[in-house]
Amino acid sequence: MTAPLVGIFAAFAFSAVVQAQGYASDGYKRGFPDCASGPLTNTTVCDVSQDPLTRATALISLLTVQEKLNQTGSESPGVPRLGLPAYIWWNEALHGIASSPGVNFSDAGDYSYATSFPQPILMGAAFDDDLIREVATVVSTEARAFNNDQRAGLDFWTPNINPFKDPRWGRGQETPGEDPYHLSSYVHALIDGLQGGFDPKIKRVVATCKHFAAYDLENWNGNFRYQFDAQVNSQDLKEYYMPPFQSCARDSNVGAFMCSYNALNGVPTCADDYLLKDILREHWGWTNEQQWVTSDCDSVQNIFLPHNYSQTRPGAAAAAFNAGTDIDCGTYYQHHLPEALAQGLITEQRLDEALIRQYSSLIRLGYFDGPTAPYRNLTFADVNLPSSQALALRAAVEGIVLLKNDGMLPLQITNGTSLALIGDWANATEDMQGNYFGPAPYLRSPLIAAENLGASVNYARGPGGNGDPTTDGWLPVWRAVSNSDIIIYAGGINIDVEKEDDDRVAIGWSGPQLDIIGELAALGKPMIVLQMGGGQIDSTPVKDNANISALLWGGIPGQDGGTALFDIITGKTAPAGRLPTTQYPTRYTQQIPMTSMALRPNGSLPGRTYKWYDEAVFEFGFGMHYTNFSAEVPSTLSPTYDIQSLVGNCSEKYQDRCPFETIQVQVNNDGDIASDYVTLGFIAGEFGPQPYPRKSLVNYQRLFGIQPGQSQTAQLNLTLASLARVDDLGNTVLYPGNFSLLIDTQPLTSVNFTLTGEEYMLDKWPQPP
Amino acid sequence: MTAPLVGIFAAFAFSAVVQAQGYASDGYKRGFPDCASGPLTNTTVCDVSQDPLTRATALISLLTVQEKLNQTGSESPGVPRLGLPAYIWWNEALHGIASSPGVNFSDAGDYSYATSFPQPILMGAAFDDDLIREVATVVSTEARAFNNDQRAGLDFWTPNINPFKDPRWGRGQETPGEDPYHLSSYVHALIDGLQGGFDPKIKRVVATCKHFAAYDLENWNGNFRYQFDAQVNSQDLKEYYMPPFQSCARDSNVGAFMCSYNALNGVPTCADDYLLKDILREHWGWTNEQQWVTSDCDSVQNIFLPHNYSQTRPGAAAAAFNAGTDIDCGTYYQHHLPEALAQGLITEQRLDEALIRQYSSLIRLGYFDGPTAPYRNLTFADVNLPSSQALALRAAVEGIVLLKNDGMLPLQITNGTSLALIGDWANATEDMQGNYFGPAPYLRSPLIAAENLGASVNYARGPGGNGDPTTDGWLPVWRAVSNSDIIIYAGGINIDVEKEDDDRVAIGWSGPQLDIIGELAALGKPMIVLQMGGGQIDSTPVKDNANISALLWGGIPGQDGGTALFDIITGKTAPAGRLPTTQYPTRYTQQIPMTSMALRPNGSLPGRTYKWYDEAVFEFGFGMHYTNFSAEVPSTLSPTYDIQSLVGNCSEKYQDRCPFETIQVQVNNDGDIASDYVTLGFIAGEFGPQPYPRKSLVNYQRLFGIQPGQSQTAQLNLTLASLARVDDLGNTVLYPGNFSLLIDTQPLTSVNFTLTGEEYMLDKWPQPP
Repeated sequence: MTAPLVGIFAAFAFSAVVQAQGYASDGYKRGFPDCASGPLTNTTVCDVSQDPLTRATALISLLTVQEKLNQTGSESPGVPRLGLPAYIWWNEALHGIASSPGVNFSDAGDYSYATSFPQPILMGAAFDDDLIREVATVVSTEARAFNNDQRAGLDFWTPNINPFKDPRWGRGQETPGEDPYHLSSYVHALIDGLQGGFDPKIKRVVATCKHFAAYDLENWNGNFRYQFDAQVNSQDLKEYYMPPFQSCARDSNVGAFMCSYNALNGVPTCADDYLLKDILREHWGWTNEQQWVTSDCDSVQNIFLPHNYSQTRPGAAAAAFNAGTDIDCGTYYQHHLPEALAQGLITEQRLDEALIRQYSSLIRLGYFDGPTAPYRNLTFADVNLPSSQALALRAAVEGIVLLKNDGMLPLQITNGTSLALIGDWANATEDMQGNYFGPAPYLRSPLIAAENLGASVNYARGPGGNGDPTTDGWLPVWRAVSNSDIIIYAGGINIDVEKEDDDRVAIGWSGPQLDIIGELAALGKPMIVLQMGGGQIDSTPVKDNANISALLWGGIPGQDGGTALFDIITGKTAPAGRLPTTQYPTRYTQQIPMTSMALRPNGSLPGRTYKWYDEAVFEFGFGMHYTNFSAEVPSTLSPTYDIQSLVGNCSEKYQDRCPFETIQVQVNNDGDIASDYVTLGFIAGEFGPQPYPRKSLVNYQRLFGIQPGQSQTAQLNLTLASLARVDDLGNTVLYPGNFSLLIDTQPLTSVNFTLTGEEYMLDKWPQPP
Repeated sequence: MTAPLVGIFAAFAFSAVVQAQGYASDGYKRGFPDCASGPLTNTTVCDVSQDPLTRATALISLLTVQEKLNQTGSESPGVPRLGLPAYIWWNEALHGIASSPGVNFSDAGDYSYATSFPQPILMGAAFDDDLIREVATVVSTEARAFNNDQRAGLDFWTPNINPFKDPRWGRGQETPGEDPYHLSSYVHALIDGLQGGFDPKIKRVVATCKHFAAYDLENWNGNFRYQFDAQVNSQDLKEYYMPPFQSCARDSNVGAFMCSYNALNGVPTCADDYLLKDILREHWGWTNEQQWVTSDCDSVQNIFLPHNYSQTRPGAAAAAFNAGTDIDCGTYYQHHLPEALAQGLITEQRLDEALIRQYSSLIRLGYFDGPTAPYRNLTFADVNLPSSQALALRAAVEGIVLLKNDGMLPLQITNGTSLALIGDWANATEDMQGNYFGPAPYLRSPLIAAENLGASVNYARGPGGNGDPTTDGWLPVWRAVSNSDIIIYAGGINIDVEKEDDDRVAIGWSGPQLDIIGELAALGKPMIVLQMGGGQIDSTPVKDNANISALLWGGIPGQDGGTALFDIITGKTAPAGRLPTTQYPTRYTQQIPMTSMALRPNGSLPGRTYKWYDEAVFEFGFGMHYTNFSAEVPSTLSPTYDIQSLVGNCSEKYQDRCPFETIQVQVNNDGDIASDYVTLGFIAGEFGPQPYPRKSLVNYQRLFGIQPGQSQTAQLNLTLASLARVDDLGNTVLYPGNFSLLIDTQPLTSVNFTLTGEEYMLDKWPQPP
C-alpha cells in the first residue's frame, strides 16, 4: 500500500501558510481586502463598476493552483502575497448571531452579546411571516455590526429548513415545524430579511439553506447521520422533503446551500449530481455564479468513511467537488484535492468555478468595495436596540400555544399573589436559547418574570427531565407548594434531551416529572403546566387531569422567554400561537422506526405529520384562545373551475406559482378579550392519487388585535400549487375532483368547489438516474 | 380526587427537622454519636459489651414513630434530641473513594484527593484476585481516613457486579467483565479487602453489591432502565445473572445489597419478594440483622412511575419496604411511608426491622464505640501512600492486554526517540478515571509518560470519538507525524460515549478515527494503536491492517494510566492481561436487541458471551505476550469419577462448594522475556442439558515474573460447581458425561475425564411464585 504523499505534503504546505497568518481559531486574522493601497489596488476585483463575475474571475486569475486549492475549506487562509485576507465561511445565526468558528464575541462590553430570539420552532408557531422578516433583518443588521469589527463573517449557515417529521429528531427545534408549505413561506420571509431582499445589489448577508436533503435523523438505534442512507421515493421527496428548498433556491434566490451528512437513495448528498445539479441548479434555475454549496462539517470526509462511497480519500473529495460542493467544511478538500488534481480526478476549471462562486458571493456582499459600501457604518450601537429587545419578546409571545384552559387563564397576578413556581424550566437560563446561540444581553426566566410582576414566588427546581431521575430535589417542592395559593409547573425537555447528534428515544414526560405533576395536581390548588422544549411531549396525562387547569406550550423562548410566558399567563397578550408540529402519543415512537422516511401509512406503520396521522394528542395547527372566534368566507368562489382555463390564464414560468383565488376570510371575535388570530387555510378532498391526505395547509395569515365584537379580514392567496397533488414520479399535477377549503384545524367554516377538465402537469420532476 | 395530605404534611415536618440540622447536601452535619457525654451515654447502644442486635434494638426503642420514619432515606437526619447524628448512606468508591452525596473532598490540601485506581473492567483483566484484595484494602483504608474527618460515610455503594453481557452497556466499565465465575471470584476478594475480612468484629467499611438483579441496560432504543422489564428464565437467571450475587451474599458475607431500577419478569426488583426474600435472604442465608438492602436512587419512586407497578405512591413505597428494601435512596420513603403506615400498608414492626438493620450495621462499624475503636486513628497521612501509588500503577499494568504484535513491541524508547502521539486519549486526564471517581493526586497521560521517558513527542489530538466528527483537528496531525519516526495512536471511546443512563448504539471505531488510523498506517511508519475505553470496540480494521504493528487494549487505566501503557510498550513490564469481555464484530449489535436477556443463541439471535458466541474478533480471555508459554498438567487426575462418590465425600452445607480436584498446571516460559502468565482453566464437554456451552471458565491463577527458560506451577482449585450445569428450572446439577479441562483460550494443553453415575442436584433453586 502506497501512502498518498502528494496530498499530505500539499497539506503541509498549506498548514505552513496558515500558521504564518495566525490561522488558529483563537488567533485568526481577518479583515477586508485592501483595495486602496494593497497589491490588489487597481486590479479588476476592486473595480466597483464591473460585474461580480468579471471581478471574481479577475481575482482568481491571479492565484496559483496551490493558492486555489488552499481556499477550498471553510477556513480559507487567503493569499498573503496579494493582500487577500483569510475568511471563515462557517458562521452561525440560527436565531441571533451565534458562537461558531467565524463568530467571536468579546468577553465583556461591546460585542459581548447579541439579541437572542426564540428557537425557530417557537417562531414558526407564530405563523407570522412579517415577524420572521423583521427578526431576520435584526439578525443581519447585528451580523454586519459584528463583521465590521471583524467578529463575524458575511455568510451564515442558517436556516435549518428540513421539515420536522419525527418528534424524536434532536434538531427539530431548529426548524419552524413539520409542514412543507409553512416552511416554504417562512423561509421566503427569512431570506428576505437576512439577505436584504431577493436580489439586492449588495446583500446584507448570505443565507444558507440546509441540510439538502432528507436530513432529519441524528443518531437513532445505531443509525448515525454520518452514514444513514435515507430511502425516499420521488413522490415523498418532491411533496415533503423538497418544498422548503425549492422556496430557497427557486423562489427566494438564497445565496448558499449546504448538503447534508446522510445519503439519499444510496448517494451521499454532497456527492449527488442528481440533487446538486439536476434538481438544485437545473430544475430550480439556481445558476447564478454567486451561489455556492458548502458541505456539512466533514460530510466530505464521511463520503469516504463511514459511507464507504468512494474507495479512496481523493476519490471522495473529488466526488463531492465534481457534484458541485464548492466549499468543504473541514480540511478534507485542502488535504486531498491536491492529490485528486494530480490524479486527474478534478480539473482546474472546476476549481476556478468553485472559487468564482465563493468570491463573487463576497463581491455581492461589498467585501471588496471599501468602507463606504452599504452596511459598513453599522456598529455595536446597532446591536440590542430597544426595538430588537421588544421584537425578541414579541416573537416569543406570538408563538406560545394555549393547549388547555378551564377558564383559570388569564390569571391576575398582583403584588402578593402567592405562586409556587416548580420545575427545571422555572429558573431556566441558557435552556431558553436551545442550541446555536451566542451570549444574550439578558436571560429572563419565568422566575424573574413572576417576581417582576410583584408575585410572592416560592421556587423549587424539583425533578429534572430524563437526565435527573432522583427525588433529591423534591423536599423543597413541598415546602414551596405549602406556602402558595397557585402552582405553576414549568418542565419538559431541554438541550440535554433533544440535541444535535442524539435523537430522543421517547416522547413522554419523564416518570419523575409525571409523578410530581400528578402529586401537585392532587393537592387541589389552581395549577398550570408549562410544557417547554422544542419537540412535542405527549401531554395526555396533563390534558386528562381535571385538577390541572391550563397547559401552555412555551417552546424554547429566547432571551425574554419568562416575560413572554407571563405576558400570556396574565393576559397582557392573549395567546394565538399554533402548534407547528403534531403532538403524538407516546406509543407513536414504538410504532415507527426513525429510519422510515415514508409519509403515508403503510401496513403497521402509522402515517407521519397531520396530513397522514389522525390520532394526535394535539394536532398540527392546534391552539386555543382567551376568546371565541367565528369566520365567514363571502361566496366569491365559483362552484366549479376548469383546469384548462386555470392553466390558460397562467403566464408564470413556474406554473404552480400562478394565482388561483384570493380568499377573503372574515374573522369575528365573538368573545370579550382582544386577541390575535391565525387564519389557517387547508385544502382537503378526494382528488389525485390515493391515498388522500387528511388535509394540507395552503396559506395562512395572522390577524392582530381583533377587538371584542369586531372583525378583521384575512386574505388567503391560493395558487395552483394549493390545488395540486404530487404523483408517484414526483410530478406536480392538477387533478379534477371535489375540493374543500377549511378554515382552521377544527374548521370555523369551509367552502367547497370542484375542478373539472383534464389533469394537467404543472411541474415535471427530474427523474433520478 | 383527594390529596394524600397526611404524607405530605409528615414530609413537611421532616423537612423542618432536617433544615434545623443543616440538612442540605452542602451543609450536612455529621459526626460520630456522642457516647461519652451526650443523651445516649449509658444507654445500651453505647455498651460495647453487648451484641449489635441488642444495642440497635435498644436505640430504636428510644425513637418515636416519626423519628423512625425520618431515618428511612439515604440522607438520614438522625435524632437531634438524642444526639444521634445525621448519616448519609450514599457513598461511592468504585475504584477509589469517589465524589458522591456522602463523600466530600476538600478544595485543596489534606483530603483534596484520594488514590484513583483503574476502572474495574481493567482490573478484571488482570485476573489477579490478590491484587483486587490489595486495592480494596487501600480503598477502605482511605475511606476510613476520610470518615474520621467526617468527609465520608462508613458504607459504600460498590461493587457493581452485574455481568457485562452486552458491549453496548454504558456501565459495563464499572464491572470486572462478562464471566460469572470470574466476577464471583473477583468480588469475593474485593469484599474481603473492603470489609476487612469476611466476618470481622469491626468492619473496615460495608460494601454493597449492586444492582440486584439482571440490570445491564441504561437507555436503549426507548427502553429506559427505570422501566425496563427484563424477561429472564430460571436457567439463565441462576447460571448467568446470579453467581456474582451468590458470591456476595452466601460466600462473602457482604454487608449490603442494592436492588435495581429494572423489573425482573414483571416485578420491579426493589419490590420483589422472590428476589429479596426467597433467593437473597432464605436461599443464600443472608439473614444477619446487620445486613440491609438499599434501593437504587429513586428506584422506589420508579415502582410508581414509570413501572406503574403500584397504583398509589404509598403503595409503591410499601411494596418496596415490605419486600425488604430497607433504605430508599431518595426521599420517597420519607415522603410516603407515613401515609403507608397510616393506611396500614406497613407495620411498625417492619420499620423497626429496617432500622435495626441500619444501626446494627453501623454498630459493626464501630460507629458507637468512641475514638479508640479500630480504624479511628487513620488520617490523611494514610492516603495516597507511595505503596498505594505503586499499586494503582500495577493494577493498570497487570490489566493491559496485548491484542496484536508483529514483533515491534517491546519498543525501546530513549532520549530523542521521535514519537508522534495522536488521538483523543493521547493526553487524557479524567477520561482515565471513567465514572464514579474523585480527584486523583495526579493524572499521568500517555503524553506525560512518553515525555518522562525522554522521547521527543509530537502530540496532536486529532479526531475525537463519536462526539467529534470534524476534521478540524487534523492538520496538526500531519505536522506531528511528519516530524516523527514512530506513530502511536491512542483513541477509542470515553465517558462521552459509554456512560450511565446511555448505552452505546454502535461498537465500531468512529468513521473519523478509522479514517485517520488508515491514513496514518498508509504512511508506512512503525505504528501502534491503543484501543482505550471500557467496552470493547471492533478493532478488525486494525487487526487486519498489515501496516499497523501492534494493538493494545488499555481500558480505563486510572491515575497513572499513561505510565502503565508505556511500561507495557517499552517492555519494562511484559503484558499479561486478558480480555475480560468478548470483542464482538460491529454487526453483532444489529443482530440482537439489548433487551434480549437470553444467553443462548435462538433463531436469528446470536448467543451472548464467549460461552455461546463463536465469531468474536478477540474472544474473552485472549491476550498475547512478549514471550511464548507452554503448559503441562501432570497426570494426577483420574480418567473417571463417580458422581455419587464425589458427592458422598462432600460435607459442605452448599454442596457446589465441595472440592473436586486441585489441578497443578506447570507453565513454562519458552521465550526470552520474563513475563507474568494468567492461567485460565476452562471446562468443556457434552454433558447436561443441550445446547452445550463452548466452554466455561472454572478457575484462574496469575503467575508472576516467570523467567525465560523457567517454569512456575499454577494451582487451579476445582469444585463440584466447576463440573455442574444448570437445568431449565435453575437447579445446579452434576451430570455424567465427558469433560475436558482446557488451559487457556487457545489451549496450551488439556485433560479429559469422565463423570459416571446418576445425575445429582447440588443446589435446588427456589422457584418463582
